[in-house]
Amino acid sequence: MSSAYQNLVNRFQQMYHLQHLGAIAGWDQAAMMPAGGNQARGAALAELNALLHKLLTAPEVASWLQEAQRQETSEETIRSVEEMAVEWLHASAIPDDLVKAKTIASTHCEHAWRSQRPENDWEGFSKNLKEVVNLSRQEAGVRAEKSNTSPYNALLELYEPGVNTQELDLLFGDLKTWLPGFIQEAQDRQDSVTIIEPEGTFPTEKQKALGLKVMKLLGFDFNHGRLDVSTHPFCGGVSEDVRMTTRYSEDNFVEALMGTVHETGHARYNQSLPTDRALPVSSYRSMGIHEGQSLFFEMQLGRSPAFLSLIQPLIVKHLCDGKQPPYMALDNLEKIYTQVRPGFIRVDADEITYPAHIILRYEIERDLIEGSIEVDDIPELWQQKMKDYLGLDVAGDHKNGCMQDIHWPMGAFGYFPSYTLGAMVAAQLFAAQKKAMPDIEKQIQNGSLMPIFDWLKTNIWSQGRKYSTAELMTRATGEPLTASYFKNHLKERYLG
Amino acid sequence: MSSAYQNLVNRFQQMYHLQHLGAIAGWDQAAMMPAGGNQARGAALAELNALLHKLLTAPEVASWLQEAQRQETSEETIRSVEEMAVEWLHASAIPDDLVKAKTIASTHCEHAWRSQRPENDWEGFSKNLKEVVNLSRQEAGVRAEKSNTSPYNALLELYEPGVNTQELDLLFGDLKTWLPGFIQEAQDRQDSVTIIEPEGTFPTEKQKALGLKVMKLLGFDFNHGRLDVSTHPFCGGVSEDVRMTTRYSEDNFVEALMGTVHETGHARYNQSLPTDRALPVSSYRSMGIHEGQSLFFEMQLGRSPAFLSLIQPLIVKHLCDGKQPPYMALDNLEKIYTQVRPGFIRVDADEITYPAHIILRYEIERDLIEGSIEVDDIPELWQQKMKDYLGLDVAGDHKNGCMQDIHWPMGAFGYFPSYTLGAMVAAQLFAAQKKAMPDIEKQIQNGSLMPIFDWLKTNIWSQGRKYSTAELMTRATGEPLTASYFKNHLKERYLG
Ligand SMILES: [Zn+2]
Ligand SMILES: [Zn+2]
Repeated sequence: MSSAYQNLVNRFQQMYHLQHLGAIAGWDQAAMMPAGGNQARGAALAELNALLHKLLTAPEVASWLQEAQRQETSEETIRSVEEMAVEWLHASAIPDDLVKAKTIASTHCEHAWRSQRPENDWEGFSKNLKEVVNLSRQEAGVRAEKSNTSPYNALLELYEPGVNTQELDLLFGDLKTWLPGFIQEAQDRQDSVTIIEPEGTFPTEKQKALGLKVMKLLGFDFNHGRLDVSTHPFCGGVSEDVRMTTRYSEDNFVEALMGTVHETGHARYNQSLPTDRALPVSSYRSMGIHEGQSLFFEMQLGRSPAFLSLIQPLIVKHLCDGKQPPYMALDNLEKIYTQVRPGFIRVDADEITYPAHIILRYEIERDLIEGSIEVDDIPELWQQKMKDYLGLDVAGDHKNGCMQDIHWPMGAFGYFPSYTLGAMVAAQLFAAQKKAMPDIEKQIQNGSLMPIFDWLKTNIWSQGRKYSTAELMTRATGEPLTASYFKNHLKERYLG
Repeated sequence: MSSAYQNLVNRFQQMYHLQHLGAIAGWDQAAMMPAGGNQARGAALAELNALLHKLLTAPEVASWLQEAQRQETSEETIRSVEEMAVEWLHASAIPDDLVKAKTIASTHCEHAWRSQRPENDWEGFSKNLKEVVNLSRQEAGVRAEKSNTSPYNALLELYEPGVNTQELDLLFGDLKTWLPGFIQEAQDRQDSVTIIEPEGTFPTEKQKALGLKVMKLLGFDFNHGRLDVSTHPFCGGVSEDVRMTTRYSEDNFVEALMGTVHETGHARYNQSLPTDRALPVSSYRSMGIHEGQSLFFEMQLGRSPAFLSLIQPLIVKHLCDGKQPPYMALDNLEKIYTQVRPGFIRVDADEITYPAHIILRYEIERDLIEGSIEVDDIPELWQQKMKDYLGLDVAGDHKNGCMQDIHWPMGAFGYFPSYTLGAMVAAQLFAAQKKAMPDIEKQIQNGSLMPIFDWLKTNIWSQGRKYSTAELMTRATGEPLTASYFKNHLKERYLG
């Protein structure tokens, strides 16, 4: 091992330790902090981020990388240096002035958006968004030049290394033409289905106890993590101490329960990453692979009849004080958890209509960053695509249309595709497991989930970034990512 | 304002932001973190401390200080620079090698102590302690040379700036001769008193609700802080977001309730420090002044008949489901909260016997650091002094004798005096208020506590480190710190 590589390892170790403090403080901000602490917390986290940026982009890091790239000979350290170089390039590609300008513009835009959205104020919002788009285009341009690719591809690279618009157009294009008809068919099927809505109060404490039980069933390691409450559920913290959150509504348990299952997927990935955790090569592969794990837990496993039959007695036991009301019948729970309902809001969408929301956003943000459309074009495009993909008319309702998400105001262009890539990843991983374990549904029903998680741990979680997404998927499933398993999954569940 | 001063302000601002993250992570470690996260957390906090040390002792800081000391002209900035220089001197006085050696030795000693104490293993413990004492003597020697004082004074300076052994010998010497007879008298008085012990289960949730109510009464700002649970109660976090903890026992509410009152005193001081919080001159004055606030809340206010009569209905309401058992009678609560019982353990001591525990430790650690005694002498000295000051025989029981505290294993020599200085501070502040508000007891009984807190805020909390401890006390009470108000307080409460 070269001394240059050792220096790099030490620097990433140092950054990892400091990031640990930021991760815990970030979790605390969402789950624990009283409102009055927000300004001081924001300043503290900004200071940390500036420091981390400085540690990563310091001149010595560039020379260590060059030296290590020349000197390292083992396959393992070569891969490790490659991923260090990726981190370095992402951080050092854009000039400090641009970073600062984008931070100011997006902080301002996001802050104003919080009040503009409820007021449906597209006029006011679009003015700020133009500035964010302008700076994001500059950022994309600079990154594209350094990576020799297109501007939007350069932003995608931040979330989905190795994935580009060519691949997305292929994966999404297929879905896009197929979805509208399929959604119609699935809805027609459900027309005759009657769902009994859950009734009554479901106290937070009882829901939490149920959630903890289900997390345990799903293998969450409580010695290295905990569950709390936040307005927007997420999975944060660090690998050694994962902080998961859920949001409870006492009216209904349905969302919180499946939200907990979803975040447990993220959590188990984090808890099972390679142990030399400070190295970039030991980090999670991509946002899409991450979402693939949570959607595996939620969509492939969680909403399956087999899993619902496994946890139904637990739900009844925790929430019903002994006797089982009709809405808790297994077949009713199945119906609840597979209900198709096209709607305006992405985060409320079911697994069939969700991809439509993503494809719409992908097409708009891609063209926006590439410069073929402008911010002023968004509302009309949104309206048209909502009509085409979901048959809904959102005209004039900006707050439930193009103003609903935080991603664009905060300048996170290139992020949206990860959600649907994740759905495809989940379906493909599950299909591969099913091939290897034909009785998988019976296993699930019997509560024998460990073989499933061990498979994921071996094939995905413990691999970190050792391989590219394409190679990782091929090694795990026999082929690179394709939309077909996701389509098959939907067909089977909704028309089977 | 000179540019040197501006540079210093920026540097301390940066450090303040990073310390914020350490404070929250430290609170989390005690109150939230699952056990498995401990190693990663320890490494993260150690990294942060090394970084903070580096930021403070960087060569440019020394030159900025020199320049600012020459250039600043306003009284305010001159004081600010003085306190910056104090921080700098404390951090840079001892060589990095010695810092590292002491950290290793004390970490090892403390870790081993955790199992050696229950096993009463003085042999094993003393071997490690000798190393810690040896390095602490070296540290004290280097600090003493730079500050032109004695070794133990140099360590005292870290916790009680401006206080020295001459002053302590005076303050403590007076108490020491007076206490044994006084303790006897107070005990004789209580011989005829019958206390009804609280009975029954006091659920944690109910105790917590009561604690929150009392914190509210005491002016705790819940927009800038919260209450949680930890094994060792403390008050942490940052001024903008104070994290208080308590420990509940379901057998009894007495300790947790008064513990909450105590920590609320620390909390209010923290929440009310000057607003330019990153400057050392805006930090708390000393450990003794800090403890003075918590003991004002606990001993002067909290255990007074007036305050107990104010909160007695709250206690009954929260813990007794309607009807009042005999042990909740006001006069019984008064007896419980003023019971005198000489014992081996410092943290369990009442306010009369507590100073004896402190004076004993002060005399031993002072002589240990000054070199007139050795580690091997400790058990015999401990035994002799426990006999002399409290009339107790601790022979051979090291775990309840000289091995009971964490301070020495962790190398914190010079800290103990602050506890009793705090008791004196609290009594003197209360006496000054009583002089200004002769009907203070009536006010307390009526729940009109704001005038008391406003007085503390004006005279102590908002002053930060603007003045020396002596000047701060003189401005607030008309004279520097003296033991006489503490003695008067004890006489009045226990013999009055
Ligand atoms: Zn997710
Ligand atoms: Zn205290």
